[in-house]
Amino acid sequence: MAPGRFITFEGGEGGGKSTQARRLAAWLSAQGVPVLLTREPGGSAGAEAIRALLLEGQGFDPVAEAMLMFAARREHVVATIRPALAAGMWVVCDRFADSTRAYQCHGQGVPGEVYRRLADLALEGLSPDLTLILDIPPEAGMARAAARGVAADRYERLDAGFHARVRAGFLAIAAAEPARCVVLDAAHPADTVFAGIRQAFAAKIGLDASI
Amino acid sequence: MAPGRFITFEGGEGGGKSTQARRLAAWLSAQGVPVLLTREPGGSAGAEAIRALLLEGQGFDPVAEAMLMFAARREHVVATIRPALAAGMWVVCDRFADSTRAYQCHGQGVPGEVYRRLADLALEGLSPDLTLILDIPPEAGMARAAARGVAADRYERLDAGFHARVRAGFLAIAAAEPARCVVLDAAHPADTVFAGIRQAFAAKIGLDASI
Repeated sequence: MAPGRFITFEGGEGGGKSTQARRLAAWLSAQGVPVLLTREPGGSAGAEAIRALLLEGQGFDPVAEAMLMFAARREHVVATIRPALAAGMWVVCDRFADSTRAYQCHGQGVPGEVYRRLADLALEGLSPDLTLILDIPPEAGMARAAARGVAADRYERLDAGFHARVRAGFLAIAAAEPARCVVLDAAHPADTVFAGIRQAFAAKIGLDASI
Repeated sequence: MAPGRFITFEGGEGGGKSTQARRLAAWLSAQGVPVLLTREPGGSAGAEAIRALLLEGQGFDPVAEAMLMFAARREHVVATIRPALAAGMWVVCDRFADSTRAYQCHGQGVPGEVYRRLADLALEGLSPDLTLILDIPPEAGMARAAARGVAADRYERLDAGFHARVRAGFLAIAAAEPARCVVLDAAHPADTVFAGIRQAFAAKIGLDASI
């Protein structure tokens, strides 16, 4: 059996990652592709327990926080992602390692070398086949996130400078890895963004955008 | 102000680490030494939250577990241990990094290289001045732990082979780092063990055992 593909959605708050990930998973399913839709932090029992600590807790030293993120990611990769890929499923994941790079390194000042070492330990070479970065100005994204009516988590409550650094971080990642990453303007209507996602698929994965 | 000293207690379950750590802290206080008594996993607000996940949770992938342990340790070092040492306090800690090496590497098969990388990231060179390893056969230690009447945590419920590997791990650490580590026979009465601890102090730290 051919191994599955690994597709991640990344970007700041309010860019529509969860919505577009669900939509992509549904579209792939409709093409007959076996799909697993998951999210981070979380995606397995152990990782979800760590998620609660990260999003609702009192905050951690930034390096400790990066370690917690990668502990959750390791759980997720070992228990959920690798088995699904090995079984030929396509995995669509709402946030992955780039979020740690953008939030903890660009946003909170954790050295890139710390990120790379943790990623080596946790992922052992696993990397997405395609990463869709939904880019939106932080003010617009935060306003959308607030409009959802759900209580803001710890990251959403951080200041505007933090969210600007996170956005710049995602764009720097995309610039450094153009073969893997596609940046989409998430200020556009959801249908326009999804059309862009299908075009990215056609270009990067080879599934025809017209399907 | 002279920086403080960092003393750790290590060993398997039921060896009397907590009791002897308390006793050492009281003895040092009585000599006029400013002491902070702490424990792992835990020892700071964030680290205690991670402790609950580790001891009561459903278990994790061993590498993820080592990452969680070092995330908690990072919190503890940054928030508690380094500030205390910088303020001239002596820090007495019930378990530290050697426990991760013994439990996760020797006990659960995490490669030593994973341990070393996580230790580098989390500790940035911090190492105990003296480590007291309370050695006891696992059967005797587990019987003592059970006699405490407290519900067994997740590690205590693991099998005899695991606990034998952990014990061998602590002894291997002591053999590799004789300048830092002293092994004490914890099957002896508590007073005898404590006399050995004071002798170790006289030999390694220079505080007179006869004080």
